[in-house]
Amino acid sequence: MGMQCGIFMTPYNPPSRTPRQVFDWATDIARIADEAGYADFMIGEHYTLGWENIPMPEAVIAACAQTTKRIRFAPMAHLLPYHDPATLAIRIGWLSQVMEGRYFLGVAPGGHHTDAILHGFDNIFDLAPRQLEALHLMERVWEQKPFVERGKYFQAGFPGPETMPEYDVIIADNNPYGGRDRLEIAVTGLSQKSSSMQFAGERDYSPISFFGGTPQMKAHWETWAKAMESKGRTPDRKRYRVCRDIFIADTDAEAKRLFLKSGLMQTWKHYLKEIYVKFRLFDGIIADSGLDVTPESIDEDFLAEHVVLCGSPETAIEKIEALADKVGGWGQLVYNQHDSLDDPKPWEESLRRFATEVCPKVRMPDLVDA
Amino acid sequence: MGMQCGIFMTPYNPPSRTPRQVFDWATDIARIADEAGYADFMIGEHYTLGWENIPMPEAVIAACAQTTKRIRFAPMAHLLPYHDPATLAIRIGWLSQVMEGRYFLGVAPGGHHTDAILHGFDNIFDLAPRQLEALHLMERVWEQKPFVERGKYFQAGFPGPETMPEYDVIIADNNPYGGRDRLEIAVTGLSQKSSSMQFAGERDYSPISFFGGTPQMKAHWETWAKAMESKGRTPDRKRYRVCRDIFIADTDAEAKRLFLKSGLMQTWKHYLKEIYVKFRLFDGIIADSGLDVTPESIDEDFLAEHVVLCGSPETAIEKIEALADKVGGWGQLVYNQHDSLDDPKPWEESLRRFATEVCPKVRMPDLVDA
Repeated sequence: MGMQCGIFMTPYNPPSRTPRQVFDWATDIARIADEAGYADFMIGEHYTLGWENIPMPEAVIAACAQTTKRIRFAPMAHLLPYHDPATLAIRIGWLSQVMEGRYFLGVAPGGHHTDAILHGFDNIFDLAPRQLEALHLMERVWEQKPFVERGKYFQAGFPGPETMPEYDVIIADNNPYGGRDRLEIAVTGLSQKSSSMQFAGERDYSPISFFGGTPQMKAHWETWAKAMESKGRTPDRKRYRVCRDIFIADTDAEAKRLFLKSGLMQTWKHYLKEIYVKFRLFDGIIADSGLDVTPESIDEDFLAEHVVLCGSPETAIEKIEALADKVGGWGQLVYNQHDSLDDPKPWEESLRRFATEVCPKVRMPDLVDA
Repeated sequence: MGMQCGIFMTPYNPPSRTPRQVFDWATDIARIADEAGYADFMIGEHYTLGWENIPMPEAVIAACAQTTKRIRFAPMAHLLPYHDPATLAIRIGWLSQVMEGRYFLGVAPGGHHTDAILHGFDNIFDLAPRQLEALHLMERVWEQKPFVERGKYFQAGFPGPETMPEYDVIIADNNPYGGRDRLEIAVTGLSQKSSSMQFAGERDYSPISFFGGTPQMKAHWETWAKAMESKGRTPDRKRYRVCRDIFIADTDAEAKRLFLKSGLMQTWKHYLKEIYVKFRLFDGIIADSGLDVTPESIDEDFLAEHVVLCGSPETAIEKIEALADKVGGWGQLVYNQHDSLDDPKPWEESLRRFATEVCPKVRMPDLVDA
C-alpha cells in the first residue's frame, strides 16, 4: 500500500466570501477529491474566524452524503467544550450512519481566543478539562447502558427500563456505524510541543500534524509513539497523517507562477504569516532550510521553496521522499485547501495531479513492516 | 393570497429504517415538495426516539441547499436546553446564510422524557427555564456587541476590541441572513392547554398547531392572539400554521383504500395511537365528531373520517373550509410526513395533488383583512 492522500479544509477563504460560497466550494472540492481518489476529507470547526468560517462541519458532510461515493469525512475537529456532549455523541453516531461508515471523528479543546470568548470563557486554558469530561460522557452514551452522570461541567445519561415513560418507546440506535470500536478518532497538532500528540497516543487516537518542519514532525511522531507504547499499543506509521500546503503543475516554474497568484498565496499574505510569526511556527522550517532568515522576513520565494510543496510531480515526489527519509514515513499526506473561487482550474488540476501523479509513486519508508 | 402548504417531517419512520434511509427519504420529499410548490419544510429534532429519528435537522437542511430552489426550511424545533447557546446561535445564522434566507427557526424546551434522560435530566419540567436563558444568550450573540455573561445554566459572549488577541482577527459575520429582525421564529403546540402559544405570542414568534380538533385550534389561536395583543402587536392569521395528517386521491374511496395500507396508517397503529390515548390528545377530535367513542376504541374508520384529512381533492377542500368556518382561518396547512418507502407513488401523488389541486382552491376566511 502506498501513501494515501487526504483533504483538509480549515477552510481558508477570505472573509469576503459568504457562507454559501464557502459551502458550495467545499462540496465542489469534495466531489473532485472523491473522483480523484482522495481517501479522507477533513473539515474544521470555528465560530468567529472570518478566514476559517465553517462553524458546522456536519453541514458539509451531510451535503456530500449523496454526491460522493468513496471518500471518508471527518469534522476536524469538533470542539468539545462548545457542545452538549450527549447531543454531540448522538449526532456523531447518527451522521456516521448516514455516511454508512464513511466517517471518522476529530476532537479538540478549541484553540482560538475569539471562539473561547464567544462561549463565555476568558481564555483557552479553561477548555482542556472540559474536553476530557465531554469525552468521558460521550463514551458513556455510546455504551448504551442506563446511567445518569452530572459532572463538573456537563451532564448526560441514557434511558433504561427504570427511567422509561409508561408508554412504549423504542430507543433509536444512533451509535457510531458498526459500533463504537470501529470509530476512528483523530487529533491534530501544530506547534512542536503540542500536548495533543501525547493525549492522542494515550487514548489510541490517530495523530495528524500540520507541517512544521522536521524537528516538529519527529517530535510529534515520537511523542505519539511513546504514549501509544506506554499503554501497550503498537504505533503504526500508517495512522500518521501530515497536512501540507501543496501546488502541483507541469514544471517547477509553472507551479511557482501559479502558486504566486493563487488563493493559497493570498492566505499566507493576508492571514497566516502573521499568525505563524506570532506563534513562532516557522522555526522548524527555517532550521530545515539552513538559511539565515527571520520569520518576519519570509517572502514568496521562501514559501514556495520551503513551506509549500510546490513543483512538478517529480519534484514533489523527491521532496516528500527526502522529508520521509529524515523523519520516517507516514500514511497520508493531506492537501490543505485554500480559496480557489477566482481561478478554480489550476487549483483543481493540482489537486487531481497530486492524487494521480504524486501520491501513488511515493516510496514511503517504514510502512512495510507495520 | 390563498392558503399556503407546508411539510412537517417529525419524521415518522419505523425504527427499522436506518438513519441513511430516513435521510435519503427526507431529501427526496424535500425535492418533490419544492417542485410541487410547498412553501415550508420543517424537520423535528429528537435524540432517542426510534420512531422520530432525526437528531440533526441541520443535516437534512444542508443537504437540500443545492437540490431545492424555493422552499424554506426550519428545524422544528431546536431543543434549546440540549445545545450550547453560542454554538447554536452561530450555527443558525451561518446555516440561514448558506440557505440564502430560505430558513426559519423553531425553538422548544424538549418534550420527550427519554431525550431529557439522555441529557442527564430527571424529567422535562427542568427544561423551560433553560430554554429562556438560552434564548436570552442567543439574542445577545446576535447583537454582535462585546459582552460576557455567565448565566445559571449557560454562558456566552462576543469578542470586542478589549478581548481580542494581539494579532489581527476579522470576526466572521454568522448572523441570521439579512439580520436578526428578518429571522422568523416559530413554536409548535399540541395539547389544548399548551403553554407554548402564550410563550409564542409574548415574543412575536409564529404559532403552529398540531391538529387536535376545533376546541384546541380555537384555544391555540385565542391564546396566541391575546398574548400578541398584550404586547401591542396585531395577530395575523396568515402567520398561523396547522399541521395535519393528509391523504388525497382521485375519490374518497380510493383515498381511504390507499390510506389504510400507507405508512401513515402504520404510524397510527404502532406508535401514535398509544401516545394520543395516554395524553388524551383525541379528546377535541372526538368532541367534534359527535360520536360516542372512547379514545381506546378509535379505529381505522374513525381515523380516516375525523383524524386524517382523507379523500378526493373536493372532499378535502370542503372539510378544510368547514373547519375554517368554525375556528377562523390560518395561513398554511402543513402536511405531516410518514414513511412512504415501501410504496412511494401514492404518497408522492397525494403530496403533489394537495399542493396543486387542494390548497390553491381553498377559500379561507379572515385572511382578507389581515
